[in-house]
Amino acid sequence: MTEPTDQTEQERHCAKMAKRKAAQDAEVAEKTIARKGLLIVHTGTGKGKSTAAFGLVLRMVGHGKRCAVVQFIKGGWDTGERSVLEGFGELVRWHTLGEGFTWETQDKARDMAAAAKAWETAKALMAEPDLKLLVLDELNIALRYDYLPLDEVVETLKGRRPDLHVVVTGRNAKPAMIEAADLVTEMTLVKHHFAQGVKAQEGIEF
Amino acid sequence: MTEPTDQTEQERHCAKMAKRKAAQDAEVAEKTIARKGLLIVHTGTGKGKSTAAFGLVLRMVGHGKRCAVVQFIKGGWDTGERSVLEGFGELVRWHTLGEGFTWETQDKARDMAAAAKAWETAKALMAEPDLKLLVLDELNIALRYDYLPLDEVVETLKGRRPDLHVVVTGRNAKPAMIEAADLVTEMTLVKHHFAQGVKAQEGIEF
Repeated sequence: MTEPTDQTEQERHCAKMAKRKAAQDAEVAEKTIARKGLLIVHTGTGKGKSTAAFGLVLRMVGHGKRCAVVQFIKGGWDTGERSVLEGFGELVRWHTLGEGFTWETQDKARDMAAAAKAWETAKALMAEPDLKLLVLDELNIALRYDYLPLDEVVETLKGRRPDLHVVVTGRNAKPAMIEAADLVTEMTLVKHHFAQGVKAQEGIEF
Repeated sequence: MTEPTDQTEQERHCAKMAKRKAAQDAEVAEKTIARKGLLIVHTGTGKGKSTAAFGLVLRMVGHGKRCAVVQFIKGGWDTGERSVLEGFGELVRWHTLGEGFTWETQDKARDMAAAAKAWETAKALMAEPDLKLLVLDELNIALRYDYLPLDEVVETLKGRRPDLHVVVTGRNAKPAMIEAADLVTEMTLVKHHFAQGVKAQEGIEF
C-alpha cells in the first residue's frame, strides 16, 4: 500500500518525466541527416581536450573502425594511452611529429618544419578511404603560433570526405576553425590541484 | 647565411620562449606534493565528460594500473568503449547499475534503488586496496535528482584512501562536490551538430 502523498509525488514525477521524454523524442525526430563525418574541436584552457579525443578513438576501436592520431606538439611525457592504443595494431596509427612545446625547443624554424611534416602526414591520412577518425592533437597550438597557414588548413578540413570524423585539439582555437566545425567543446578550468602544490600524477596527467 | 631581420626575429622568439620556459619550470618546482589521489569532476553541458573519464582509464591501463567504472545512469546505447576496456580483463571492471535516464523510466522508486545499489558498489570498489582509479559516471545526475544523500556521498569521497583517484562525471555538479574536488573541468557546449539536424554518430556519440 502506498500513501496518498507518495502516490501524488510519484504522479508528479511521472508527469514531469513524461514531458521531458516527449521533448527528448521530438528533438531526436527532428534530426534528418543520418550520417556525417564531423569536424570536432576541443579547446579551452581546462583539462581533458586530448584525453576526450583519445576516448573517442577508444570508442571507435570498440566499433572496429580505423583511427589515426597525429600529434603536432610532443608532450614532455610518454603517455600511457599511446602504448595501449597502438596495441590495437592496424586499427590505430599514431604519429608524433611535433618537437615538444615550443618554449622547450626555442627554435622556431625547427618547430615550423615539424608542424609542416605533421600536416603532410595528416593530409596523407585523410586520403585513406577506410580511415574513420583522425585526431589532430594540438593542431590549434601550431596554428596559434602561425607554424601552418590557417586558410589552407581550414579549407582542407572543410573539404574532407563526407564520412571522415576529424578531432582538432588545443587551446586558443582560431575563429575560422570554430566557424568550420560541427561540434565545439570548450574545456574550462574551474579548479586545479596544481594550485594546491600537487605535482602531475601518473595516469592522470601522463 | 641568415638575414639580419630573420636573426632578430629568431632572437626575439628565443627570448620570449626562454621566458615562458622559465615560468613553466618555476611553476613545476613549486609543487611539493609528489603523490595524491585526486577527486576529479567533469561537469557542464558540453560533450566529453564521460569520454575524457574513459580516456583517463585508458591512460591508467597504459601504466598497468587497475581501474573501475560505475555507471549511475545507463545510456540508451551500448557504447563502444565498454567492450574495449573490458577486454583488459582484471585491469578494468565495469558496472552499469543505473536503469536508463530517469525520463525514460518514469519510476522514481526504481531509479533510487538503482542509484543506491550503484553507490554500494562504488563504496565496495573504494575499499579495494589495489584500485588506482574509480570512475563514477553520471553520479552528478543521481545527486541532482536527490537519489542519493549528498552529504554522505561527499564525505565518503573526501575520506577515500589518499592514493585513490576518483572521477565524477555529469552535468550540474553540486557546489559541495566542486568544493571537495581537487580538479574540476567544465565542458561547455560552444556549437553542436544536432542544431544542424545531424543525428548521433556511431563512434562519436555512442
